[in-house]
Amino acid sequence: MPETIRDPADPRLDPYARMRERDLVGRSGRFVAEGEVTLRLLLGPRARFRAESVLLAPERWPGLAGALAACPAPPPVYLADKAVMSAVTGFPIHRGVLAVGLRGAEPEPGALVPPPPAPVLVLGLAGLTNHDNVGAAFRNAAAFGADAVLLDGPSCDPLYRKSIRVSAGAALIQPFARLGPGRDWLALAETLGLETLALSPGGAGGLDGPDLPTRALLILGTEGPGLEAGLLARARALRIAMAPGFDSLNVATAAGIALHALARAQGRLVPRGPNRGGG
Amino acid sequence: MPETIRDPADPRLDPYARMRERDLVGRSGRFVAEGEVTLRLLLGPRARFRAESVLLAPERWPGLAGALAACPAPPPVYLADKAVMSAVTGFPIHRGVLAVGLRGAEPEPGALVPPPPAPVLVLGLAGLTNHDNVGAAFRNAAAFGADAVLLDGPSCDPLYRKSIRVSAGAALIQPFARLGPGRDWLALAETLGLETLALSPGGAGGLDGPDLPTRALLILGTEGPGLEAGLLARARALRIAMAPGFDSLNVATAAGIALHALARAQGRLVPRGPNRGGG
Repeated sequence: MPETIRDPADPRLDPYARMRERDLVGRSGRFVAEGEVTLRLLLGPRARFRAESVLLAPERWPGLAGALAACPAPPPVYLADKAVMSAVTGFPIHRGVLAVGLRGAEPEPGALVPPPPAPVLVLGLAGLTNHDNVGAAFRNAAAFGADAVLLDGPSCDPLYRKSIRVSAGAALIQPFARLGPGRDWLALAETLGLETLALSPGGAGGLDGPDLPTRALLILGTEGPGLEAGLLARARALRIAMAPGFDSLNVATAAGIALHALARAQGRLVPRGPNRGGG
Repeated sequence: MPETIRDPADPRLDPYARMRERDLVGRSGRFVAEGEVTLRLLLGPRARFRAESVLLAPERWPGLAGALAACPAPPPVYLADKAVMSAVTGFPIHRGVLAVGLRGAEPEPGALVPPPPAPVLVLGLAGLTNHDNVGAAFRNAAAFGADAVLLDGPSCDPLYRKSIRVSAGAALIQPFARLGPGRDWLALAETLGLETLALSPGGAGGLDGPDLPTRALLILGTEGPGLEAGLLARARALRIAMAPGFDSLNVATAAGIALHALARAQGRLVPRGPNRGGG
């Protein structure tokens, strides 16, 4: 049963305290997830992380009790009025659903990639320093069933609060790993038996050819500078065909379009969904 | 030649004053565009709106003088230090590039749609009340060469400051119109000779069929409630195939994927871009 907390200084709420300041400090061993959709993913069978605790406004408890009961090792649940939640976190909490998760150890990239001859779809993010774009790229990776997302050192943290939110919780279920310092994308791809595709407006190939690889590492860079020339020269550069005159796509949208094409070519997609009415 | 302004109370700067408060008030006859990419589109041959004036930090003038000289009817240019710009607008101006544009009269939807038998691609936004999503949808509409974007009454303003920014300026060149009060999407489509496609997770059809229409109105609703059942029942409902287990896409990303597929089927896209190196 949940425990009600009335004192914002209660030490059990310490991991929720001064959230925005902690956002600025960056990574620690914990992360914060907000909102019901995200919490359900964190408690569900596909979560890659363990919830350390859950903090709910009392009125949210009845709707979420079932999801907590279904969790094999349910975390402690604290109930606190939104005023207490806001006092602890330092900003207005509207939805009344927060959780603290534990990062655990990050896997090695190779541990996330099935060995040949299994089909593989990996998304590589190179220098993506915008949390919205990283979150949106994770959402697309999950929607199109990528095996893993790999991030280089400069790319930002998928478990940053805003990244998780923009990912619609995908950051909690989508396997990901960091490219170690000095590790080279193409060397890694070779080790894992993947063909490296680099998405770039200057790419010569398209996405609707019959020869899309069954084991693919798709790398995207930032919208401005794009991928570095050395990487482009060694990878197979693909571009998304666009209309004349406005050759500009958001990087996460570009990832979505390319992942959709690759996943379809690899037979990863469910062609016809259940009839869910207008949902 | 530009005129230097040192007094934040100079009446020529009135249209730039208290920008955030004006954002909250909503539409007027003017809009504000920020940043160099956006300004270049506003001054260029594809702009649908006239710039009333341009306000630059002095150090931005040399880089933009050419774009202003190339404009057939160049607007007045005011130069002001960023401190003056910030004092006028009410928030820190980092990039030092602002412009005020004039909305003019909004066209009728029918005026934007070529008559049969020309191929047509129109994006319809139904109840999109998030400025980021509207801006991102416009960016995708421009990238894939849509003839027009139509918005219903509840959808938010593409010329809101943030919409323009997220659209990467596409809102200034992409033709759009509002569905008048009480106007019905399907009745309008029939009048214009368009087939109505409704994108929905419950849709039965896919996007890779051979029978995509050459005159298409593609309607998207909000991520939560989606499109209303009455509209879905009367339109051809399509879904984007996704991986099992995470059936969730951002609405603008979904628009991008569907527009890409429709534009390709209609032969609107440039299959191979110029070799622009790593750009």
